[in-house]
Amino acid sequence: MSLTRVQRAAQAACRRMADRQTPFIYNEWYVAALSREVGRELMARTILGRQVVLFRKEDGTPVALDNRCGHRSFPLSRSMLDGDTVVCGYHGLRYDENGQCIEVPSQCNCSGISIRSYPLHRQGPVIWIWMGEPEQADIDKIPAMPMLEEGWVTSEDYMDLKCSYVYLHENLLDLTHLSFLHANTFGTPDYARAEFDTDISDDRFLLKRYVVPTRLPPVWAKPTRLEGKDAARITTSDFVSPALHIVHGEFYDIALDESERPDQRIKTAHIPTPATADSTHYFIVHGRNFALEEDEVTEFMHQQLMAAFQEDVVGLQAVSQMIEEQGDSDDYYEISVKADAASVAMRRYLKRRAEAELTEREAAVAVNSTPNKLAPA
Amino acid sequence: MSLTRVQRAAQAACRRMADRQTPFIYNEWYVAALSREVGRELMARTILGRQVVLFRKEDGTPVALDNRCGHRSFPLSRSMLDGDTVVCGYHGLRYDENGQCIEVPSQCNCSGISIRSYPLHRQGPVIWIWMGEPEQADIDKIPAMPMLEEGWVTSEDYMDLKCSYVYLHENLLDLTHLSFLHANTFGTPDYARAEFDTDISDDRFLLKRYVVPTRLPPVWAKPTRLEGKDAARITTSDFVSPALHIVHGEFYDIALDESERPDQRIKTAHIPTPATADSTHYFIVHGRNFALEEDEVTEFMHQQLMAAFQEDVVGLQAVSQMIEEQGDSDDYYEISVKADAASVAMRRYLKRRAEAELTEREAAVAVNSTPNKLAPA
Amino acid sequence: MSLTRVQRAAQAACRRMADRQTPFIYNEWYVAALSREVGRELMARTILGRQVVLFRKEDGTPVALDNRCGHRSFPLSRSMLDGDTVVCGYHGLRYDENGQCIEVPSQCNCSGISIRSYPLHRQGPVIWIWMGEPEQADIDKIPAMPMLEEGWVTSEDYMDLKCSYVYLHENLLDLTHLSFLHANTFGTPDYARAEFDTDISDDRFLLKRYVVPTRLPPVWAKPTRLEGKDAARITTSDFVSPALHIVHGEFYDIALDESERPDQRIKTAHIPTPATADSTHYFIVHGRNFALEEDEVTEFMHQQLMAAFQEDVVGLQAVSQMIEEQGDSDDYYEISVKADAASVAMRRYLKRRAEAELTEREAAVAVNSTPNKLAPA
Repeated sequence: MSLTRVQRAAQAACRRMADRQTPFIYNEWYVAALSREVGRELMARTILGRQVVLFRKEDGTPVALDNRCGHRSFPLSRSMLDGDTVVCGYHGLRYDENGQCIEVPSQCNCSGISIRSYPLHRQGPVIWIWMGEPEQADIDKIPAMPMLEEGWVTSEDYMDLKCSYVYLHENLLDLTHLSFLHANTFGTPDYARAEFDTDISDDRFLLKRYVVPTRLPPVWAKPTRLEGKDAARITTSDFVSPALHIVHGEFYDIALDESERPDQRIKTAHIPTPATADSTHYFIVHGRNFALEEDEVTEFMHQQLMAAFQEDVVGLQAVSQMIEEQGDSDDYYEISVKADAASVAMRRYLKRRAEAELTEREAAVAVNSTPNKLAPA
Repeated sequence: MSLTRVQRAAQAACRRMADRQTPFIYNEWYVAALSREVGRELMARTILGRQVVLFRKEDGTPVALDNRCGHRSFPLSRSMLDGDTVVCGYHGLRYDENGQCIEVPSQCNCSGISIRSYPLHRQGPVIWIWMGEPEQADIDKIPAMPMLEEGWVTSEDYMDLKCSYVYLHENLLDLTHLSFLHANTFGTPDYARAEFDTDISDDRFLLKRYVVPTRLPPVWAKPTRLEGKDAARITTSDFVSPALHIVHGEFYDIALDESERPDQRIKTAHIPTPATADSTHYFIVHGRNFALEEDEVTEFMHQQLMAAFQEDVVGLQAVSQMIEEQGDSDDYYEISVKADAASVAMRRYLKRRAEAELTEREAAVAVNSTPNKLAPA
Repeated sequence: MSLTRVQRAAQAACRRMADRQTPFIYNEWYVAALSREVGRELMARTILGRQVVLFRKEDGTPVALDNRCGHRSFPLSRSMLDGDTVVCGYHGLRYDENGQCIEVPSQCNCSGISIRSYPLHRQGPVIWIWMGEPEQADIDKIPAMPMLEEGWVTSEDYMDLKCSYVYLHENLLDLTHLSFLHANTFGTPDYARAEFDTDISDDRFLLKRYVVPTRLPPVWAKPTRLEGKDAARITTSDFVSPALHIVHGEFYDIALDESERPDQRIKTAHIPTPATADSTHYFIVHGRNFALEEDEVTEFMHQQLMAAFQEDVVGLQAVSQMIEEQGDSDDYYEISVKADAASVAMRRYLKRRAEAELTEREAAVAVNSTPNKLAPA
């Protein structure tokens, strides 16, 4: 079948966008776990294709090591935590928090045996991890989460998503889908047709929707007491990093003057951490700056939101299955529309980052495998 | 291990026969569904490796489109049927029955966005589909099904077969297996040793068995009232197309003169539609030209036949598993016997067809990717 | 990440050791089944990646044939045993015990059709099989199992292990893991630190541990009546062939003079037969040379040992999963320690054997495919 001009253009555009086959970006801070998940039980988690074991030291500091014992590949997560050390459950190699092997039964010396340890950093309810080049780990580059500032209350959760993290980012950067995928929860029919602006720079991608006037869905209407009123719903989708997307929302009664409006905003951090090419750890930290003392509001919003995000999980998994099955057919490509502008830019950015890193890694390998000139021929 | 001359010959012969790795033949009419399966619910079905969505328009006309939304690959089968259009459940793109996108929320123009629609044609209880080159679709090439003519009654059914369609065709073209695989249903011990003729042309392959005299199994004996009598059972296996095989049977009391025998024939259409390399939609349309008014005969024969065809499904799936597991070992090949003559010719024909099509497709791609001479360098 | 000198050395060492990707060694006797498993029911078993069907003739002689019918790949294990012949359940080809086809329905001649039969040899509770080049099969090369000699009593069992046989051999050649993986069964904390000798030759690999003094775990203490006493536990891990590992143990009260000690030894044959790259048939034949008449001792030791070996199965499967998931990451390699000396030598031996065989097979194929000089050009 010969292709039309639009189809050829779409094919060419696709080749520049990240997809499930794009390599991971390693030199980036990702969230490894909710803080409450990590304790004195050894816990395995696959991050960027690599199995990691997480635990807390006796003083509460979290630690992340390779989950694979360097000796004969036994999973340390099925081993024993002894004080601040991990003793492999197969042959008893003992590792300290830095991944150094400090004991090998039946021999004195164990110098030189080690596994990788990964820098961690706790930020409120989440723990960030650095899986990239160790020398590039820089805590100052961990992105801010404004809903963790004073004057906000938050709740957090975790979902297992069987889909590449790329498509979760894309899902968030265009909320057209609220009217369709979330028709039964927090979408309204007017959402998809509302005006929007985009703001696209080298590494930051925003899309802002103005749904005015509208009727708010219960998740926003009840806590803001805007039920049954003509309201404004202004939402910004904000790609902060490959590891973080923040949705900012504000709501007000359009009958009120700007000066009279109470400040009622929400900020939801959507945090995708790639596990494998087709699975993602999906962390959520949701915050609001009103009704701060009302626990039942926290619980109500949390339940409503998680029900809606579960719809994203189901929908994205349907997309992921389709791509896995049909993605290598001759005429597989995606056609983009106007509302995808920010998302397409973001996917190009992910692809550029991934490819640049790959080039660097290959160059490093080439340097490392240069024959040693001092060695005998 | 060195091979004998017979083994080498078998190896060479195998390389010319279609098997599970042979590409699909696209330029052919296949049955997409039983007519009764398609309604106002969106229905997904994988045909020749491609996901299709099927539904009926309000006027009852059946429609087949790609199941993948051209925008971001959401399955249309999980979307919404609105009048005669399908609205994608993710971002709301609306497609008409021709696969043209006629609405994209948040933009006016959607020209140029489309997905494939597939020609359909209803023939009695089945709906045929054309998955090949659109310009080659020709309703006149849909093969006839003689049991749909006047003077016959039919029943139909569907089975899911986890095996390449090639091996179902082969199963049908030599009914030696009735004595073994169907020993408990409609096979009799004398079947395998009965005489047979073959009729092999370029694209049609027949094998006719004369089991005379014999005792008929219940499925044929009861409706023909030939129980306990010395009967003739004359069966023709008839490969009509890659999508259709018809088994013709006639039965009579051998004590009767030819002029006295009632005309008692059956014709069963075995309709294999490839889903994937190792799975097949297996449709059945069974007809007879006697006892036309007796519904209980229809029901009795249908149940008896489906029980027997289920034995084929189980047997073919055992073969399929064996081939998947052992098919790449060094000494994997099939040795053919005399009764395979028609089947081997048929498998060579499928392979030639598949390879000829592949050559055509590759040539077309080469032409399409020739640089445009008018474009600036 | 650049690697340290130790890491580079470990990487290089790994490339010389057999692992799950190393081809099978075919020219070797393996155990196909426990004798009691094989009877007049057709039984399928995958050995060295090949499906075999096992049964006994009417006179009790065991037979092994390819499980795949040479005609159209139907599994003979789902067919019919008729006297000493197997009749394929699909088209009725009949095979004798040598794999010769002796009947094809609807034709007279079936010369030249055959499947492989495999030499078998019964040795007490096990049946050995030869899957290699037929002309190299030599019953005299079946390794001895000393626990089958007079003066010993034995029990036997079978486990399904989802792990390459290479790692089971390695598990056995260094019993450091008794202190960790078997901490709850027959390991004691002092085991891992006990002194050991190794004895490494071209094709035989031994490691001997002297755990003196120690307290014996119940499995050894109860039958030897050494409970609560300071005892010696001297264990030899003995790689006999790719198909057989024997653990020899002796136990005595260290308060007794050598001349006063009763002769209390055990010998356990650990018999790994590769099924696929990641699965192994794990047979056990355990024997002792004391308390010969006491059936309850046999039962007690058998239950205790099988519980402990089940811990190996669970642990090895955890290793196998880790290797399958992480084994192709850039920095996957195993670091060996002193106690691995015998095991590393053994894995190098397996790799050399496998590669030498592969070279031979490829050379044979090259010879076979040389054009016949007498054939017309």
